[in-house]
Amino acid sequence: MAETIFAKIIRGEIPCHKVYEDAHVLGFLDIFPLVTGHTLVIPKEPAETLDALSDESAAAVGRVMPRIARAVMKATGASAYNVLQNNGSAAHQAVMHVHFHIIPKLGEAGLGIGWKAGKLENAAGAELAKKIAGAM
Amino acid sequence: MAETIFAKIIRGEIPCHKVYEDAHVLGFLDIFPLVTGHTLVIPKEPAETLDALSDESAAAVGRVMPRIARAVMKATGASAYNVLQNNGSAAHQAVMHVHFHIIPKLGEAGLGIGWKAGKLENAAGAELAKKIAGAM
Repeated sequence: MAETIFAKIIRGEIPCHKVYEDAHVLGFLDIFPLVTGHTLVIPKEPAETLDALSDESAAAVGRVMPRIARAVMKATGASAYNVLQNNGSAAHQAVMHVHFHIIPKLGEAGLGIGWKAGKLENAAGAELAKKIAGAM
Repeated sequence: MAETIFAKIIRGEIPCHKVYEDAHVLGFLDIFPLVTGHTLVIPKEPAETLDALSDESAAAVGRVMPRIARAVMKATGASAYNVLQNNGSAAHQAVMHVHFHIIPKLGEAGLGIGWKAGKLENAAGAELAKKIAGAM
C-alpha cells in the first residue's frame, strides 16, 4: 500500500490531537470534524481496508472502541453517536489506511445517514448466507 | 436493558440466515438489507450500545470483522463497503442491542452518507483532546 498521512501521524512526523495510544492503536481528533468530538481510531498496522487487517490488530482496535466512545461522550455531553468505517473510495474512504470514525450525534450535527432498505426473501437469504459462510 | 429480537436470535428462538458464529459473536443477514450481502455482526453479550460493551466482547467482535467482511465481499463481488454501528435512536439505532452493519457498496446501492465537515482549530483541538483523554 502507498504511504498515507496516518503513517506519518503514527510515527509522530505530523502532529495530531491524540486522545488514546497503545502498542497497536492510536486515537486522535479528526481535523475535518462533522461535529465536536469527531474522533478517529486507527490500527498502527498498515492496512488499506478492514478486510486486509490482521486478526490481532482488529481485536486490539475493537477492544478499545467502547472506552474511547465513553470518553468522547463524556467529554462532549453527547448521548448518541455513530461508528463508521469506510472501505474503498466508492464507499467514501478518503485516507487509504483503516480508520474508524466515532461521530457524536448532537441535534442535526453529526453523520447523515441515507437508508433505503429492501426486504430479504427467505430462499434468497438462505442461499446467500450459505455462500458467505462458505467463503470464510 | 430490555429484551430485543437479537437476544431471541442468539438463543435460536427466532431463525436467522447465519453466516458466522463463535462463543462471543454471531453474524447473520439483515432481513431489511440496503443491498445484497448486508450483514449484521453482534456480540452475544447483551449491551445496548458500544460504550456499554465489555472489552472482551468488543475485542471478539473486532477480531472477526475482517474475515466476515472478506467473505461478504467474496460472495457478493463487491469491492467497496461500509461498516456502520449506531448508538442511540437519535443516531439511527433501531434494535437496542449492539450491532455492526457490513454494507457492500454496489453502484448506487448501499449506505448513503451525508458528510458536512468543518475544520478543527488548533487550540480548540488541543483542549478537546486533553478533555477526552482525561475522561478515559
